[in-house]
Amino acid sequence: MACLRCWVEYETAKTIVIRNKVVGSVFRLIQFLIILYVIGYVCVVQKSYQVNDSVISTVTTKVKGTGFTNISGLGAHVWDVADYNIPPEGESSFFVLTNMIITPNQMQSSCPELPNQSTICMSDCDCTEGSSDVRGNGIQTGLCVNYSETVKTCEVLSWCPLEIDTDLPERNILPDVNSSYLKQCEFNRITDPHCPIFRLKDMVAEAEEDFQTMATRGGVLGILIDWSCDLDFPEHYCGPKYSFRRMDNKNPENNVAPGYNFRFAKYYKTTDDVETRTLIKAYGIRFDVIVFGTAGKFNIVPTIVNVGAALTFLSLVSPK
Amino acid sequence: MACLRCWVEYETAKTIVIRNKVVGSVFRLIQFLIILYVIGYVCVVQKSYQVNDSVISTVTTKVKGTGFTNISGLGAHVWDVADYNIPPEGESSFFVLTNMIITPNQMQSSCPELPNQSTICMSDCDCTEGSSDVRGNGIQTGLCVNYSETVKTCEVLSWCPLEIDTDLPERNILPDVNSSYLKQCEFNRITDPHCPIFRLKDMVAEAEEDFQTMATRGGVLGILIDWSCDLDFPEHYCGPKYSFRRMDNKNPENNVAPGYNFRFAKYYKTTDDVETRTLIKAYGIRFDVIVFGTAGKFNIVPTIVNVGAALTFLSLVSPK
Amino acid sequence: MACLRCWVEYETAKTIVIRNKVVGSVFRLIQFLIILYVIGYVCVVQKSYQVNDSVISTVTTKVKGTGFTNISGLGAHVWDVADYNIPPEGESSFFVLTNMIITPNQMQSSCPELPNQSTICMSDCDCTEGSSDVRGNGIQTGLCVNYSETVKTCEVLSWCPLEIDTDLPERNILPDVNSSYLKQCEFNRITDPHCPIFRLKDMVAEAEEDFQTMATRGGVLGILIDWSCDLDFPEHYCGPKYSFRRMDNKNPENNVAPGYNFRFAKYYKTTDDVETRTLIKAYGIRFDVIVFGTAGKFNIVPTIVNVGAALTFLSLVSPK
Repeated sequence: MACLRCWVEYETAKTIVIRNKVVGSVFRLIQFLIILYVIGYVCVVQKSYQVNDSVISTVTTKVKGTGFTNISGLGAHVWDVADYNIPPEGESSFFVLTNMIITPNQMQSSCPELPNQSTICMSDCDCTEGSSDVRGNGIQTGLCVNYSETVKTCEVLSWCPLEIDTDLPERNILPDVNSSYLKQCEFNRITDPHCPIFRLKDMVAEAEEDFQTMATRGGVLGILIDWSCDLDFPEHYCGPKYSFRRMDNKNPENNVAPGYNFRFAKYYKTTDDVETRTLIKAYGIRFDVIVFGTAGKFNIVPTIVNVGAALTFLSLVSPK
Repeated sequence: MACLRCWVEYETAKTIVIRNKVVGSVFRLIQFLIILYVIGYVCVVQKSYQVNDSVISTVTTKVKGTGFTNISGLGAHVWDVADYNIPPEGESSFFVLTNMIITPNQMQSSCPELPNQSTICMSDCDCTEGSSDVRGNGIQTGLCVNYSETVKTCEVLSWCPLEIDTDLPERNILPDVNSSYLKQCEFNRITDPHCPIFRLKDMVAEAEEDFQTMATRGGVLGILIDWSCDLDFPEHYCGPKYSFRRMDNKNPENNVAPGYNFRFAKYYKTTDDVETRTLIKAYGIRFDVIVFGTAGKFNIVPTIVNVGAALTFLSLVSPK
Repeated sequence: MACLRCWVEYETAKTIVIRNKVVGSVFRLIQFLIILYVIGYVCVVQKSYQVNDSVISTVTTKVKGTGFTNISGLGAHVWDVADYNIPPEGESSFFVLTNMIITPNQMQSSCPELPNQSTICMSDCDCTEGSSDVRGNGIQTGLCVNYSETVKTCEVLSWCPLEIDTDLPERNILPDVNSSYLKQCEFNRITDPHCPIFRLKDMVAEAEEDFQTMATRGGVLGILIDWSCDLDFPEHYCGPKYSFRRMDNKNPENNVAPGYNFRFAKYYKTTDDVETRTLIKAYGIRFDVIVFGTAGKFNIVPTIVNVGAALTFLSLVSPK
């Protein structure tokens, strides 16, 4: 009975009311500041009432333009998108070939290793049959053969002739500057900040890099797309913000291999059914499209933001 | 001494107990509602005590099935997964070729540019040697040559003959409908919602798209995998939820190039050691597997969710 | 007038001060524990005052080393990075070929299907012209032909001869163990935990997997890079933490196809301009570089962490 009475009690603190203008005004001021913080900062600035979701997005890209080279040995050669854009699929990361070392007509055979401290030899005793150097080009046959008239090196089983990649061409590469044929629009930080069509040179310039250097040695350029939307507003206020930034470490001191390059090969068969290949050490700019942002909104369904508008990149290597 | 006495004081508010059944009941009701909110909503529904981590996952995919085409010029041709699945590696994004424009036996040479406003010419004066149009196919030689009996265009150095991609084949593509040979299971929204084996037509239908249209023009289809797990429960309660959604913008008005296509080439060498290539403008459906979710749990070690169960996609192009 | 007076009132609870050493000490102890929790756990351990951002990063990878195989039919063959690294671009996911089934000189023609329950036939009546089995290799021609002297199967239009992938080579694959030529450093959990140069065998061992098994059947290995930085400290205290984990499900019971493999083809043209291809069913280890972490800091600008230091992976297949 006492317990039930206990349940229907109401307990409250005894309060004193001080009727003093100074004390009262200070109290009201403090109350006002707290309300200002909650409404002004927490609700309006921080939007803490919104539930933030990471952006779920997909990216399609498209590269356009034609290049021209006149390399001794290869002759005049026109490069179109199927030649210089690797891989071709137009995903969020794509590569534009700007420089290269070509080693044509390689065949599985044996040839003298490139000369360095561990491959130069005097006689067959200096070479070990079957050994393979991590930084070498093949499997040693155990023979010591003439690399040049003065130098002998260990012979290796490999794709011969070996690639000599010490002389990187310092080509004069001109990104296209003529823009008269662009469809619809072209990205410009000031006049057209939402247009998803970019020029190579503009992107490199926005990242505050030198196009000529980056094209010769290669590098990774991030295309950062910020979809920090405020879904309190109607959807059409929510546009992407583009920025560009070099993502690889161009400082040779901190880096194992500055620049960006990779090797790939095109395989052929001769009329005698022997496999040959053309090895290409490709230097160029890899573009990584990175989408981020918190598309804040009041419900929890994951946002799917479509960044599917084709990014078009313009001409790569101009004729001399 | 006074200070020390101050430290061992206990200060508490003076309270009044009101023994009134109505006031007391209302007070208890309010207390009950607050407890209900904390336990019921914050703890049980929102699970705010759990530390949420983003899902770290890896995806492997596998495509299966054989297609058949009988294109004039190319003849009867059977397409298997090594032919139509690009790239072959089975990563989180893959492409299934459903339509294409083939330009065989291209060679580095010169040929008349495709006619349009800027390439049609009357004499050599209308063409500029060395100039390159962003939307053109090569580098102008400065000559004005016959494109057809009635039209003259500027000659370009390029991979010739040029691709003519105005006539996109409107093929009749049948996604496989026979399911008798499936291993283990097949995804079905109602009967088998956790099975990671999907049919092409089901995925496109789930995204509420028309397969025939999407296969002809190409598109990007997102396979959204939601791993919003509740790790309070044993691990086997945590299964993926699959959903499908078209990710590219199919509205031609807002989009630079509706649909999804890209160009790639297969390179050959003739018996005279001249490089030729077959250029393929590939239309098809790119599938982007997107894993998301908050695998909430009570500790902070990042969750590694393996979505490694091979996704198998069924036949692509059926025989007529 | 009463209202205004109401605005400058100050209302506070009436308090009682109990001067009792025991009650006072307990009260101060509870106060001390609360302060300890807020400063010690919430601020120092959890760093709840920091605003966490997800890591925005880009990854470049590089594979090095030479392999050697002596397969009957193919002869002695040296494999370099352009041969065994697929795709070549050095992105966050790459594949190292460690085992394969090669089917050379396939051509578009017709040949007997591989024998199984649904393809073995007695006469042409058992075969349906134009039908295509999801798990088959082509389009049936409607004929029943000799597969071997004792078995007849339905003939299919396909890339012939068909691949027979039942005998997976159990090769003896030796990851390189000689480390004398490494540039700068080599990853070691204890002595060199920040070096981004890894050996194949070390990564597989760190994931507690058997290299020989994984190389034969294939698998997916995650290279997890944790950038959980504390940006209260200067930037150079923030280094990546590497860990390795097998990401695919190697349990054959729960998995449609254990291991990791895919098919790709190299296309050739014969002197008669007929397309042939070499089909390769590639088994190997796919490495997925996964960057995560909360690079906590006091402002909200998204952090761009460059994981651009080239990851170098060492020799793959050593000579016998």
